[in-house]
Amino acid sequence: MAEPSKKISPSTPNVAVLRWGHRERDKRLTTHVALTARAFGASHFILADVRDEKVEATIAKVMKNWGGKLRFEMGIPWKQVVKKWKAKGGVVVHLTAYGENIHSSDVLKRIKAKGKDVLVIVGSQKVPSEFFSKTVSDFNVAIGNQPHSECSSLAVFLDLFFRGRELGMEFEGAKMRIIPQAHGKKVVKALDSWVRNKQI
Amino acid sequence: MAEPSKKISPSTPNVAVLRWGHRERDKRLTTHVALTARAFGASHFILADVRDEKVEATIAKVMKNWGGKLRFEMGIPWKQVVKKWKAKGGVVVHLTAYGENIHSSDVLKRIKAKGKDVLVIVGSQKVPSEFFSKTVSDFNVAIGNQPHSECSSLAVFLDLFFRGRELGMEFEGAKMRIIPQAHGKKVVKALDSWVRNKQI
Repeated sequence: MAEPSKKISPSTPNVAVLRWGHRERDKRLTTHVALTARAFGASHFILADVRDEKVEATIAKVMKNWGGKLRFEMGIPWKQVVKKWKAKGGVVVHLTAYGENIHSSDVLKRIKAKGKDVLVIVGSQKVPSEFFSKTVSDFNVAIGNQPHSECSSLAVFLDLFFRGRELGMEFEGAKMRIIPQAHGKKVVKALDSWVRNKQI
Repeated sequence: MAEPSKKISPSTPNVAVLRWGHRERDKRLTTHVALTARAFGASHFILADVRDEKVEATIAKVMKNWGGKLRFEMGIPWKQVVKKWKAKGGVVVHLTAYGENIHSSDVLKRIKAKGKDVLVIVGSQKVPSEFFSKTVSDFNVAIGNQPHSECSSLAVFLDLFFRGRELGMEFEGAKMRIIPQAHGKKVVKALDSWVRNKQI
């Protein structure tokens, strides 16, 4: 399994995303969460407790064309992931509508002040109550205190965490690259060798 | 059908979201897109071309408990929605990975400078090429030039458009309200009458 290599700048903490509560009907949603993790600068994605080869295949296909090295794991019990993460000195952030509001509180500032690698837990409707406890989550963060989507929560959290810089990143190993257009579509072949990982 | 009433401040433009390309397998995703529209400050959601009563029922249930007045419509041909919107002087923004990058270009500034109501088109993988043309979209906006999720794109776009203020909003007619907590869950009954629509 490839090691994570996509960092936004050498001093930026690594972010891993743990997806909890994946069910059959959530297949597409979990794929979107994993694609969001990749596109918004995470370096590691863990589908906890269950396995889903279809999700893995979709992510692999996207990386084959568009580059990046999101480390993908699945089937690992969530408790084991959290325990290991904490043992390595990492911080755990649980995204939940019940947590501290990302805009109206100083929670993001406090997370950043830790200067540590971050494991972001994204759940679904009914997560174990332990997720809210200090034993599991150092921070419970609400991307607004309204029900919506784990996909939206993850995107906004990462965008704010990396201050939007992740969306300008280039991805190593890309075969294709989009040239942004006001109107129309423009896709070019990327360099044969790895595309330079822009430090931003 | 209720008229949209949830505005972030009286001078803030109204945002409507048009979801294109909903298929059977996208049921949950479309629900998440609609919930994101509501939670991130849109006042109107249109499921274009097709009908899906299940999506409508989920949104209605969320509004019954958590308030808000997202106007929900479905089955209207997308061309008709766009035509009507433009005739009323509104601006059309198409979210696409091929568009101008929201962070590294000035596209958001140009959209805001218009000071007009905004129709945000969120598609799926294969949208009609017309979406990219000037006839349909005044702006093509990329929430990063990488493939990920229409749900993530919508959330980040609205969060940046409303400058995060939408996530502190209170919703009219809510039965329940979350009191943000660092650890644990706290939900209180909202006022019997409409909760004050906080002007932010």
